[in-house]
Amino acid sequence: MRQITAYAAVLHSVREAASRIAPYAHRTPVMTCLTIDELAGCRLYFKCELFQKTGSFKFRGACNAVMKLSDEEAQRGVVTHSSGNHAQALALAAKLRGCQVHIVMPRTASPIKRQSVEGYGGKIYLCEPTLAARESMAAELAEQTGAVMIPPYDHPDIIAGQGTAALELLEQIAAQEGEPLPPLRREGREVGDDPHPSPLPGREREFALDAIIAPIGGGGLISGTCITAKAINPNIHIFAAEPAGADDAARSLAAGRLIPQTNPNTICDGLLTSLGELTWPIVRDHVQRIITVDDEKIIAAMRLIWQRMKLIIEPSAAVAVAAVLSDEFKSLPLGSSPTSGGVGVILSGGNSDLDHLPW
Amino acid sequence: MRQITAYAAVLHSVREAASRIAPYAHRTPVMTCLTIDELAGCRLYFKCELFQKTGSFKFRGACNAVMKLSDEEAQRGVVTHSSGNHAQALALAAKLRGCQVHIVMPRTASPIKRQSVEGYGGKIYLCEPTLAARESMAAELAEQTGAVMIPPYDHPDIIAGQGTAALELLEQIAAQEGEPLPPLRREGREVGDDPHPSPLPGREREFALDAIIAPIGGGGLISGTCITAKAINPNIHIFAAEPAGADDAARSLAAGRLIPQTNPNTICDGLLTSLGELTWPIVRDHVQRIITVDDEKIIAAMRLIWQRMKLIIEPSAAVAVAAVLSDEFKSLPLGSSPTSGGVGVILSGGNSDLDHLPW
Repeated sequence: MRQITAYAAVLHSVREAASRIAPYAHRTPVMTCLTIDELAGCRLYFKCELFQKTGSFKFRGACNAVMKLSDEEAQRGVVTHSSGNHAQALALAAKLRGCQVHIVMPRTASPIKRQSVEGYGGKIYLCEPTLAARESMAAELAEQTGAVMIPPYDHPDIIAGQGTAALELLEQIAAQEGEPLPPLRREGREVGDDPHPSPLPGREREFALDAIIAPIGGGGLISGTCITAKAINPNIHIFAAEPAGADDAARSLAAGRLIPQTNPNTICDGLLTSLGELTWPIVRDHVQRIITVDDEKIIAAMRLIWQRMKLIIEPSAAVAVAAVLSDEFKSLPLGSSPTSGGVGVILSGGNSDLDHLPW
Repeated sequence: MRQITAYAAVLHSVREAASRIAPYAHRTPVMTCLTIDELAGCRLYFKCELFQKTGSFKFRGACNAVMKLSDEEAQRGVVTHSSGNHAQALALAAKLRGCQVHIVMPRTASPIKRQSVEGYGGKIYLCEPTLAARESMAAELAEQTGAVMIPPYDHPDIIAGQGTAALELLEQIAAQEGEPLPPLRREGREVGDDPHPSPLPGREREFALDAIIAPIGGGGLISGTCITAKAINPNIHIFAAEPAGADDAARSLAAGRLIPQTNPNTICDGLLTSLGELTWPIVRDHVQRIITVDDEKIIAAMRLIWQRMKLIIEPSAAVAVAAVLSDEFKSLPLGSSPTSGGVGVILSGGNSDLDHLPW
């Protein structure tokens, strides 16, 4: 018997998620910056999930999962394990639904993320910073309390929710709102500090992205991006950006099988986890390339976005910026032609510890 | 003979400036944040001039002045003195016009602002950090080179250009673009991290701001704001926010005469100057109140905007945020009624030194 492979989510579930979270989530702006376009050698469209509720895209998936619960399930509460952004996102989603929330966090999670979870009414349980410790404590809590487990990425409703970021990005690009955008190098136009504010600058001609790049950790964001963007435009390229110090996804894609992450070592605290059983097949089939970058490059990219675009992004978001500035990215046959449609970059979050800047 | 007092700029000159700079300047977004609304006790609309070209509103005035020059004048080049943001703005405006630019800067100006001016092709002349030293060196340069002096604030074209920020803000508010905005406290809606992205959330009913607040240094931004907003809506209140360590404007308004600033002592490096002969009469006649705040409050407000809104603002912008969070502001009879139209806050710039954060 031939096995039929079905992904955990499809475009239809992403569209349903978009409707479900619309009353609660922000439609985040898309911004551009000529200086960074020049550095990357192509037009970049930054989807600003740093402006999402709770400061990261994670609210999309968590909100979708929580709002989809039956009343009976919601009454039992929800539980998860997370290094931070999913925890905040779930805590707010649960608060909006009016249900209890139990959060297992590694004891190494940043104080600001812990405070934020508590601020949304989440109850925190600290554990050792390993995936095994997190999973077992969360499972125990689910059993003890009857709460519904909402994992950080490997869940159909989470993947569908995260896909709404790419759905919006593609809609915003297609809408071509606002003033006509100048070509990348226009005579007499400076290439200095130039973040194009929303509404998104448009183009005179029909327009579609050549590619989207997003960070990869557990794979929730990138797999949601894949199923959305590939269903809308099968010719679009999907790239993932990964820290060299937690490159399980790159190694998995190269090997053709899921290789778990052990002993990650990177500043990107949102990208320490392994791919999941549901996210891996989508990544395997649809991510064209995974670009790995070291922490030094990630920190430089983060600082560039702070300085030039005045946007606070966290290291786990900066990895995608570092990737589009890499020689590897520039060697790709994208974005270099004058008719190129540009590349979408998902700035996944902005929850930085302002007391400990990495430069 | 009775003296007829005429201001240096009027709404008509602001509208002309808006047309003149439209091809070069950004229409910056307006953002909101429920958390900060809660702290201030009223709905706040943040006009994000941190996203303006060169990272501050100063580009508006400089661009207006430079683009208004005759070809003969432009060929002689331009000269100014500035602690930083006007310098960058003039350097870019001159570059766009294709003319030479000479910039007198205090030797204490931040390295990042100096680098940026040089990046735009500006030639820098360092002087002692006093107004007298700056003015005399700039005048000398003008005489030697024949370059046209474009002062940082006390000039009709600068005032008119800065007024375009308020013009846009009022247009954006009136347009009521986007989704209906919830009332300040809506049941079941969280008050957490909640920057409303552009397009600006609107309202179901007709809508106008109760007040606008902007920082005051030399008075270019606030006087441009006054002539624009008061001409469009005579009932609007205009407030200025000033560092306690450079409170010449507050003392001038209290005394009813222009009192120059001596020995300023504040982190707000863009607000060290005295009011000018052209800006003072407008401030005197139209600014309802000047709220002074100390540096500690300014730094806390700056950090709040970074952390909650993920927007990088500089201390000279944060002074307006600190003012709306002050007890003095809360005691005003504004924004407390349920039908209040809200308060516009001009976030004037984002050029912070990322190597020396003030907390």
